[in-house]
Amino acid sequence: MKEKHYKFMKAAIKEAKKSLDENGIPIGAVLVHNGKIVGRGYNKLLQSGSSILHGEMDCINNAGRLKGKDYRNSTFYTTLSPCDMCSGVILLYKIPEVVIGENETLAGPENYLKERGVKLINLDLEECKDLMRKYIQKNPEIWEKELERIGVPD
Amino acid sequence: MKEKHYKFMKAAIKEAKKSLDENGIPIGAVLVHNGKIVGRGYNKLLQSGSSILHGEMDCINNAGRLKGKDYRNSTFYTTLSPCDMCSGVILLYKIPEVVIGENETLAGPENYLKERGVKLINLDLEECKDLMRKYIQKNPEIWEKELERIGVPD
Repeated sequence: MKEKHYKFMKAAIKEAKKSLDENGIPIGAVLVHNGKIVGRGYNKLLQSGSSILHGEMDCINNAGRLKGKDYRNSTFYTTLSPCDMCSGVILLYKIPEVVIGENETLAGPENYLKERGVKLINLDLEECKDLMRKYIQKNPEIWEKELERIGVPD
Repeated sequence: MKEKHYKFMKAAIKEAKKSLDENGIPIGAVLVHNGKIVGRGYNKLLQSGSSILHGEMDCINNAGRLKGKDYRNSTFYTTLSPCDMCSGVILLYKIPEVVIGENETLAGPENYLKERGVKLINLDLEECKDLMRKYIQKNPEIWEKELERIGVPD
């Protein structure tokens, strides 16, 4: 079970690294339906000057307009715990299962997702934490601005 | 007070009508900071084949990457009650006040927004309901597909 999840998480990590190659924030996501990746995406805030293209949003957008029954039968993999917005898109399309790489760098509203019936699995991967840790160490000012933008800490 | 809100809601309605002109779903939004509109947007699901560009998301994206303290001092106007995703972006950027045109066509997680400290004002405008009613009457199959996509009704 965990091996299957790790296989797809590796694909999400690959997306995160694509962002890094573009001097972006290394967060990536993939959407899996019937054992196949149907969408891939990564954080494009810096590269695209976007305020909505988190890795998860980019992934959902890249997956195209799926049928509702397909969303409702999918698993979403993301290298970092989804924020309020990305948790929102999970709830909008009723994606039932979300596998996250880690939630130490930042944690989204995980309890709320669970209350709304989403199954959440945290792989707690050193690999994902390390990607973010190194990025933040190299880019402390950029990261601080990102945190100010979303009001963290309160 | 209500007059000030209506002035900005009219700008959101204007956005909704832009969507209609492109055969899109008539939902629009504007973001207001210090009495000025700093972002405008409308639903582009059909026109752009997007799965994330609701009116509110388009508006936030078009506003650009604002400072956190500016988001936290803004009011968001949207012609329809924000869905889970759009409520999520409101929470992510900690926008404190949301004015909606109506919530009869569809209602988002309004109680959750309130619980999280967002001030929600429903102008309950016939004008907004009518835009959606006429659109749905003219495009019943498109609308039905949209509802299936988000699993409404459950």
